[in-house]
Amino acid sequence: MKLNIAVLAGDGIGPEIVAQAQKAIDAVATKFNHEVEYTSALVGACAIDQVGNPYPDETHEICMNSDAVLFGAIGDPKFDNDPKAKVRPEQGLLAMRKKLGLYANIRPVTTFPSLLDKSPLRLDIVEGADLVVVRELTGGIYFGDKGRSEDLTKAFDNCVYTKEEIERILKLAFSYAEKRDKRLTVVDKANVLATSRLWRETAQEMEPDYKDIAVDYMFVDNAAMQLIQWPKKFDVMVTENMFGDIISDEASVITGSLGLLPSASVGTHTSVFEPIHGSYPQAAGKDIANPVATILSAAMLLESLDLLEEAKLVREAVNKSIEEGIVTEDINKENAYKTSEVGDWIAKYI
Amino acid sequence: MKLNIAVLAGDGIGPEIVAQAQKAIDAVATKFNHEVEYTSALVGACAIDQVGNPYPDETHEICMNSDAVLFGAIGDPKFDNDPKAKVRPEQGLLAMRKKLGLYANIRPVTTFPSLLDKSPLRLDIVEGADLVVVRELTGGIYFGDKGRSEDLTKAFDNCVYTKEEIERILKLAFSYAEKRDKRLTVVDKANVLATSRLWRETAQEMEPDYKDIAVDYMFVDNAAMQLIQWPKKFDVMVTENMFGDIISDEASVITGSLGLLPSASVGTHTSVFEPIHGSYPQAAGKDIANPVATILSAAMLLESLDLLEEAKLVREAVNKSIEEGIVTEDINKENAYKTSEVGDWIAKYI
Ligand SMILES: CC(C)[C@H](C(=O)O)[C@@H](O)C(=O)O
Ligand SMILES: CC(C)[C@H](C(=O)O)[C@@H](O)C(=O)O
Repeated sequence: MKLNIAVLAGDGIGPEIVAQAQKAIDAVATKFNHEVEYTSALVGACAIDQVGNPYPDETHEICMNSDAVLFGAIGDPKFDNDPKAKVRPEQGLLAMRKKLGLYANIRPVTTFPSLLDKSPLRLDIVEGADLVVVRELTGGIYFGDKGRSEDLTKAFDNCVYTKEEIERILKLAFSYAEKRDKRLTVVDKANVLATSRLWRETAQEMEPDYKDIAVDYMFVDNAAMQLIQWPKKFDVMVTENMFGDIISDEASVITGSLGLLPSASVGTHTSVFEPIHGSYPQAAGKDIANPVATILSAAMLLESLDLLEEAKLVREAVNKSIEEGIVTEDINKENAYKTSEVGDWIAKYI
Repeated sequence: MKLNIAVLAGDGIGPEIVAQAQKAIDAVATKFNHEVEYTSALVGACAIDQVGNPYPDETHEICMNSDAVLFGAIGDPKFDNDPKAKVRPEQGLLAMRKKLGLYANIRPVTTFPSLLDKSPLRLDIVEGADLVVVRELTGGIYFGDKGRSEDLTKAFDNCVYTKEEIERILKLAFSYAEKRDKRLTVVDKANVLATSRLWRETAQEMEPDYKDIAVDYMFVDNAAMQLIQWPKKFDVMVTENMFGDIISDEASVITGSLGLLPSASVGTHTSVFEPIHGSYPQAAGKDIANPVATILSAAMLLESLDLLEEAKLVREAVNKSIEEGIVTEDINKENAYKTSEVGDWIAKYI
């Protein structure tokens, strides 16, 4: 098979971690006889610096022509500290989501047995937790009309959802539940919000088509509690954009393996695979950042192209590296390996 | 002093727990020579059943004429399971908030040393956590225009904030920070939402008036993570209605003392004091529910009327009861006291 991968390394540690994921992809390609072509493109703060746009048209073209996008991270503190900045790296992210139609963000949260002492939760609560958060990514209040009154003393953000948008993401969530433990939790605030009532109604209408899936409904405030109290209770959670932003980030810290978690943003044209952590500017260029989340994102990328054996081998290599203690300083300060060393080890194992 | 207290016991365990809080208030009144007059009124599911309205006008009148409102809990499963119900207990809550101008919900989250093993977090993470969440309660997306398109396939909810609303709640949050550890975290999503940008801008303008307060700004997704990772980092958190709903509920479970946490909803006319837990219908009438959250809400009520000594004594009595193991079955299954026994013990101690 010939793979056409767009590489958007982005800012901060982006280039270093993406390079390790490419090593892993190259290793499976060699082993399974695939041909891989990478096309690099600008995104984020570095794209603003070089061409004045955090998601340039050229980058969009490259993504559209790819089988999948491998993404690093974006963000630079110089923009955070300037409230008057007109273009921000985050806008590139939102533009990319909209233009590529990345309607679903998939975040598997797994526990790594040897790292459980890093979890802020008690061992008995978190041990064995294994869930996926499916977040709607191109609708809702993030993309609705927003603005200020003329005298600037009043602001508004509008949240809109159509039944079509909701059906599309629920379908995906149901299909994840089918491949997993067959439990789906729909998170909303249907006791207050009209959009949430449409979500709940739509899910209830779809239930009969998925008789083998146990569906339950939970208000978002309650879900925020139960995630901490009983994370093992969840299999697949699905929710709208804003709730998903909060809930998926909350979920990502419970197992203590934030630096190890991958994500996929499923699109109508192509899909984007990236670690859930940020661009970690303080570590940039130091060869110390943890590349595992990005390597596991590459595994999700392979899966999305139906290269299941290949993906499995990447995961196996990652698990092995962690078991053997081939880890960066965030995991083991005393006996730390470099970013590139971890990448090399995993590629070699493959 | 003469205290005029409206008593809205509500549904489920409401009447039982409110009765214990009244015992505590009566005990301090006797000791400090105050006169207390209680006026009971209907709210919630029982109000729907009796007069068809979850927050009847008569109840509103009684609240308006009171110095403070002692509130139990509302909610009945028969409404949750009926998606076609026209009136719901929750609407009573929202109507009460709006009509009484309850613009701020205050939720102190404290740890009870002897109960820390109930926390889902690791001891070292949660020990000593002590924070307050200040939630805006009458604005934002909960109260904005909402509805459906005519063909029902599209729904919307509008989020609106005025600078005035934001200033009012920030002022209160700053004043809480002044009385506490002088740290204030403003939680928003200013990288995406126009309303959040107005929040952040307003807070930044107010900062110079509170030179002794260290203010920081945090995106809500990040706050949802850090609450679990480093709860001790927070002193006062302030945020808009929807974020506050999620964040305050999340915060309430970290110390493991959900059944013990009180709240105050500060209003322009009067204020309402209630436990943060719900109406727990399965336990109704069994004399097993934990009355401590309601008794501590009564302590907040006394504080709001400047009866500081009185409030302190109530808190002392509660702490003592917990230390001595005079607790309900949710805290100690083997050696459980009844709701009324805990209430009697605390009143007697006072
Ligand atoms: C940067 C921001 C716009 C973005 C979001 O909230 O969607 C981020 O928090 C994320 O979750 O990817
Ligand atoms: C019942 C509901 C409307 C309410 C809210 O979200 O405000 C509740 O969750 C709360 O936090 O008091």
